[in-house]
Amino acid sequence: MEKKTFALKGNIIFTKEKEHFEIIKQGYLICENGKVREVCPVLPETFRGIPVEDMGDRLILPGLTDLHIHAPQYAFRSLGMDLELLEWLETNTFPEEAKYKDSEYAARAYGIFAKQMKKSATVRACIFGTIHSEATLTLMDLLEQAGLRTMVGKVNMDRNSPDYLREPSARASADATREWLRAVADKGYHHTRPILTPRFIPSCTDELMELLKEIQQENSLPIQSHLSENPGEIAWVKELCPWSAFYGDSYDRFGLFGGDCPTIMAHCVYSGEEEVERMKKRGVFIAHCPESNTNLSSGVAPVRRYLEEGLCVGLGSDVAGGTTENLFAAMAQAIQASKLRWRLLDDSLKPLTAEEVFFMASKGGGAFFGKAGSFEPDYAFDAVVIDDGRLSHPQPLSIRERMERVIYLGDEREVYAKYADGEKIL
Amino acid sequence: MEKKTFALKGNIIFTKEKEHFEIIKQGYLICENGKVREVCPVLPETFRGIPVEDMGDRLILPGLTDLHIHAPQYAFRSLGMDLELLEWLETNTFPEEAKYKDSEYAARAYGIFAKQMKKSATVRACIFGTIHSEATLTLMDLLEQAGLRTMVGKVNMDRNSPDYLREPSARASADATREWLRAVADKGYHHTRPILTPRFIPSCTDELMELLKEIQQENSLPIQSHLSENPGEIAWVKELCPWSAFYGDSYDRFGLFGGDCPTIMAHCVYSGEEEVERMKKRGVFIAHCPESNTNLSSGVAPVRRYLEEGLCVGLGSDVAGGTTENLFAAMAQAIQASKLRWRLLDDSLKPLTAEEVFFMASKGGGAFFGKAGSFEPDYAFDAVVIDDGRLSHPQPLSIRERMERVIYLGDEREVYAKYADGEKIL
Repeated sequence: MEKKTFALKGNIIFTKEKEHFEIIKQGYLICENGKVREVCPVLPETFRGIPVEDMGDRLILPGLTDLHIHAPQYAFRSLGMDLELLEWLETNTFPEEAKYKDSEYAARAYGIFAKQMKKSATVRACIFGTIHSEATLTLMDLLEQAGLRTMVGKVNMDRNSPDYLREPSARASADATREWLRAVADKGYHHTRPILTPRFIPSCTDELMELLKEIQQENSLPIQSHLSENPGEIAWVKELCPWSAFYGDSYDRFGLFGGDCPTIMAHCVYSGEEEVERMKKRGVFIAHCPESNTNLSSGVAPVRRYLEEGLCVGLGSDVAGGTTENLFAAMAQAIQASKLRWRLLDDSLKPLTAEEVFFMASKGGGAFFGKAGSFEPDYAFDAVVIDDGRLSHPQPLSIRERMERVIYLGDEREVYAKYADGEKIL
Repeated sequence: MEKKTFALKGNIIFTKEKEHFEIIKQGYLICENGKVREVCPVLPETFRGIPVEDMGDRLILPGLTDLHIHAPQYAFRSLGMDLELLEWLETNTFPEEAKYKDSEYAARAYGIFAKQMKKSATVRACIFGTIHSEATLTLMDLLEQAGLRTMVGKVNMDRNSPDYLREPSARASADATREWLRAVADKGYHHTRPILTPRFIPSCTDELMELLKEIQQENSLPIQSHLSENPGEIAWVKELCPWSAFYGDSYDRFGLFGGDCPTIMAHCVYSGEEEVERMKKRGVFIAHCPESNTNLSSGVAPVRRYLEEGLCVGLGSDVAGGTTENLFAAMAQAIQASKLRWRLLDDSLKPLTAEEVFFMASKGGGAFFGKAGSFEPDYAFDAVVIDDGRLSHPQPLSIRERMERVIYLGDEREVYAKYADGEKIL
């Protein structure tokens, strides 16, 4: 497909740095070869004559990135929210995920998921499937059709789950993963990439982790998993891996914790000094999932500290620990959770600001995909056009104020158009 | 208007007690003289032939009650959410409320508010206006037209606010209130009642409180105010009323704290033993406002304790401390805040359940209006018909599960029809 040069005109807002919004009122966002060429208040001479799509008074923001979401859990979002993590997995999650052995069910359920994701402000996402290769391929087909830019993982689990949702051995899990990767390669997706997905330490034997490292190296794959979410989970990992210095170390011993293995770890609610240091050293991405951490009574991650120490932090909706794929809601919840943390637990970490949560949901998480989530030159031309006309108000509002309202009140109704790599996908 | 007898057919769900839902799948909800006659799985012989509106597979719930919302703050919902209570009042609230001196602005802003309230699942509400009588009458006109059942207050403030939003004296405030009450009487509203509204202790001199008690007695009026929301506020009240034993006592000394004066106190985040005892003894209603208490970093009220002790508790959206009039969101936030309270502060109070928050938003708060918020015989026939078709799912769901989803994910899009006292208002 030829990549045309064009511009969007409107009220442009993004966060180059997490401290403040860059705002260009009635500015031009120029796309060249699927990338941002520049943002400017007036179209430069050299670009006179290119097609300009006038978005009127609407807001134009970078496409958002969801660093952590479970596609098969979308079916039971907001159900059975009265349990903590480990019990919730046994009671709600594993029985639902087992259904994805049935291709017909998977197609139906993933169809709903992909449709909702398409409508949302999310352009990029890192997504968990289930242990089932066929269902995961179905999911990838649907996401490819939706035009989203995603990394999707067939989940690995060879211990501590019911028979009906456990791979029979480490070897079988590894073989299935290799087979799935071959099938993915055959599909020739343009926008849908595989990501290694050991569920979490309690679900994966040491042998499986070793095999996954082999696979990771053979294919230069990124990985995604869970880390330090819940006190019960952390205690269990200590039992399972008595040789590890801390939870994150039990990934790192297998070479699956950043460095040459791009890694996302979801949650990090209870990461200690050493774990934080290791994540920093290895460039591990943290997917902060405030709604999930609230719904499963896990706690509130010390996100300000991670941001201040320069760690890579993005936001995750974590459906179905979270109830919605809407990343505006995740932004608001990140602020809200940080306020209760400040008030109830530790007033040394000030609440997060609108700018900071916007940064995490755009440039922060987008960085896992390379240059994405900002409108700086050479970034992927991912853009979301927001029509906030539904959110009536009697007084004039600044662009920043309108953005703040969308963070708290916006959902798919406000998404007027969406672009990925310069391609209009909604 | 003749009150006809009719029935709604559908999936009926309500909470007689806070511990569990009453669910009648494909049942009949019979209305006689604007009241609930009964709920039954089959239409009884005596009612054969009455009109039946078949709501198909939709859910039918009691109309919800918002025990605490500020109409003039709707304009700046979700703006400037980075401040604590007292600073937020000075910076955001007072400047906005001052605008309601201008009748044209008030009509425009309140028009937006009334329109949104009409669309929501709220049938009854206790609403703060501003100090301006004319604007408050405009608000009452609009709410009356919207068919909502409301109590609305012209606010009293004669100290500790800027000149532009302070009544010149206690006497002037009382006189204006009496004049406003006469105008309200002249209006002959059917569904819109006045409620005395001293803003909170810091805004009202002792003299004003004494005068308000006179007015309360002359007119047998209910009252609404704020209580024990924020540590800074509480310390300030202690300074202002050194003679009071605790914050609530500073209302009670004037006879404005329950008993023969039906009272709603919003927040009660930090109510101590004595205050709780007094509220219990006097039958004071607590408006629990979880989103507001989160957004203004106030804290989380120990709601389970209030419920267990048998206090009267309802939910308040508290716009614009809260960002939305949507009481489903308030229910979800009540659960979520209680979980973080449990995890971060005090694990002796278990998180709230879906049943409990539903109860608070229906029968709990409805009780301030008499028999409202339940489908027990003789309750006001307030009903909300919910079409949850937007919330797609691949698996069969029970009525309770569908209700749980609406709590977390529902908004005005799900409100298909709404009845108040047997009258269809949407």
